[in-house]
Amino acid sequence: MEIMLSNPAAPQLGAMREQLDTPALLLDLDRFERNSARLASGIQRGGVAWRPHTKAHKSPFLAARQIELGAIGVTCAKVGEAEVMVENGIRSVLVANEVASGPKLDRIARLQDRAEVFACADDPYHVELAAAAGLAAGVEIPLLVEIDVGMHRAGVAPGAPARDLARLIDRSRGVRFAGLMAYEGHVLTLWPATVKEAAAREAIGLLVDTRRLVERDGIPVDIVSGGGSGSYTATAQIAGMTEIQAGGACLMDLFYADECHLAEEGYEFALTVLAMVTSRPTSDRAIIDAGFKALSARDDVPPRPVGLPDVTVTTLSAEHGYLELGPGAPDLQIGQRVELIPDYSDTTTFRHDQFVGLRDGRVERVIPLLARGRLS
Amino acid sequence: MEIMLSNPAAPQLGAMREQLDTPALLLDLDRFERNSARLASGIQRGGVAWRPHTKAHKSPFLAARQIELGAIGVTCAKVGEAEVMVENGIRSVLVANEVASGPKLDRIARLQDRAEVFACADDPYHVELAAAAGLAAGVEIPLLVEIDVGMHRAGVAPGAPARDLARLIDRSRGVRFAGLMAYEGHVLTLWPATVKEAAAREAIGLLVDTRRLVERDGIPVDIVSGGGSGSYTATAQIAGMTEIQAGGACLMDLFYADECHLAEEGYEFALTVLAMVTSRPTSDRAIIDAGFKALSARDDVPPRPVGLPDVTVTTLSAEHGYLELGPGAPDLQIGQRVELIPDYSDTTTFRHDQFVGLRDGRVERVIPLLARGRLS
Repeated sequence: MEIMLSNPAAPQLGAMREQLDTPALLLDLDRFERNSARLASGIQRGGVAWRPHTKAHKSPFLAARQIELGAIGVTCAKVGEAEVMVENGIRSVLVANEVASGPKLDRIARLQDRAEVFACADDPYHVELAAAAGLAAGVEIPLLVEIDVGMHRAGVAPGAPARDLARLIDRSRGVRFAGLMAYEGHVLTLWPATVKEAAAREAIGLLVDTRRLVERDGIPVDIVSGGGSGSYTATAQIAGMTEIQAGGACLMDLFYADECHLAEEGYEFALTVLAMVTSRPTSDRAIIDAGFKALSARDDVPPRPVGLPDVTVTTLSAEHGYLELGPGAPDLQIGQRVELIPDYSDTTTFRHDQFVGLRDGRVERVIPLLARGRLS
Repeated sequence: MEIMLSNPAAPQLGAMREQLDTPALLLDLDRFERNSARLASGIQRGGVAWRPHTKAHKSPFLAARQIELGAIGVTCAKVGEAEVMVENGIRSVLVANEVASGPKLDRIARLQDRAEVFACADDPYHVELAAAAGLAAGVEIPLLVEIDVGMHRAGVAPGAPARDLARLIDRSRGVRFAGLMAYEGHVLTLWPATVKEAAAREAIGLLVDTRRLVERDGIPVDIVSGGGSGSYTATAQIAGMTEIQAGGACLMDLFYADECHLAEEGYEFALTVLAMVTSRPTSDRAIIDAGFKALSARDDVPPRPVGLPDVTVTTLSAEHGYLELGPGAPDLQIGQRVELIPDYSDTTTFRHDQFVGLRDGRVERVIPLLARGRLS
């Protein structure tokens, strides 16, 4: 059986937005770059380094652009994503998760000759596995201790438990203690700003207090990492932090705009999905060719059509989106293109193989999500 | 910039389930084949042909297996999926959607020399566009008229409006009237069986009545297509149907088992996601390495761990799944593998690039979802 890799639907460079086949994941490159520069400067104002999380864009090309704009490296979720980044020239990668399998840690060890690739630990199990992989490969795997500062996902308790884990790493061969990490994901949507800032200070306080506890042992803490797009304005200002992982604001979406209040900070919607009306069965219903395989939607936050008043996405089935046309809606025609702002970039991008990178409404570059599908 | 395509995490043939890296999309091949044979025979009992929808598996290899087990061809959602199927040897493909762009219809026209590739219309717009594409390529594009029989998605109204569209196709050059299609998706979850059957008869009655109306014009109706996995037991028995598109039951999931009552028909869970415990921060919480990029979950239907009593998936973030361990739960260890039955196959499979095809618990074949990402 032959394997087909050519794609007759691939967009042409120079094509206009109005000529693109649908559905397509669009990235406005000017906006992406302005958002990235804004995020970089906002973080660096606090004297802190920027290590953007690439889990939504999954692209070494966009990662390299972020590094040109000030990032010191990138954050990834998975070892497979780190491999794609390193293979494509990124020299510093934090895998911001516990890695709990020997084969995965062997892969991290093998990457060390071309890049600095950090992983996290919240249990002696991870340290022992990483030490074995490092020793076998003749390298030291740099490990951060992840601390639970209130999100209650992964992470060891702050204070003595985290300090004890740092000690274990520090005295183990095959690994190197590189610092501490936490994610204050539970504060992102708090509001007003004063409430969010207080919660961020409380959460990150546990992280930087632990830093001091570890340093009191004489163990240097080079990296103290954390911070999302919804919290960096507070977190990047807290003394003791060394780097911020926020990356989502470079793409922007309704979650960051409305629930994290980033529209008020000047971030622009760089990411959209282009769809086409394929059916107009009734006067109040239009069907588009983007369903849940091209778009995501939370119950109360559907994707938002651009420039189409009184048009609402009501349902997504696999390949169909239902648009409800209110009294003030335009009379959408079959064949008409509809551009939608995603509810959340991180639940949208991985449904696609590529961004269509636009500048001034024309295709400048097709950007594959090279690390898409690298789930392990 | 170099593009990395090798994948160090690729599973080895012959590996045991317990050796697989995670997360991984597992397909039990024996179960897939038994489900497929059961579905084929259930449909063919009514003298009706089986044209399974491939939107969840997206694999020409699995499509070919279904054809060996009795299917006459396959159903696809997108032109890009049809291209992958045809390029890989499938000779009859129904694109069960309206196609509303000229370039897409050109692509369908180009496929006609290697396969019969049908598309749908519910408006003269589609017919005119298809006719232009067919004429330009010197072929006749076979078109089905899609009828709305109560799901209220796409589709022209049954009766005279559908008949008029069939007439338009019949007299247009560059296209050929091939039949009628409807999807009774609104009846799948009705219960008890008598209620579902009555609703299916009512919906499909509109379809087969329209068939007679078109035939009264002297226009032959070769194909009358419809039916999902949740409705085929009723729909395949209705006189006037010629083919059934049900395909999801071959994979099975919690939706088909519990809401469509297919477990009672003997279908087995062929599709699972394998994950690993990466953190055990508290006695009642375990974190696995599969979040919403590897698994889907509806609010009230999380994926179900296999063989782990009192263990519940409570939340999925991007790459983390939260397991709540009740009093009767086993003491899950970091590094331990957890197998989960998806809530819905169609929202699960496209998150992965490949099925790991197992037989007797060993990797027999890695099956890429070749049509994954062919959204247009």
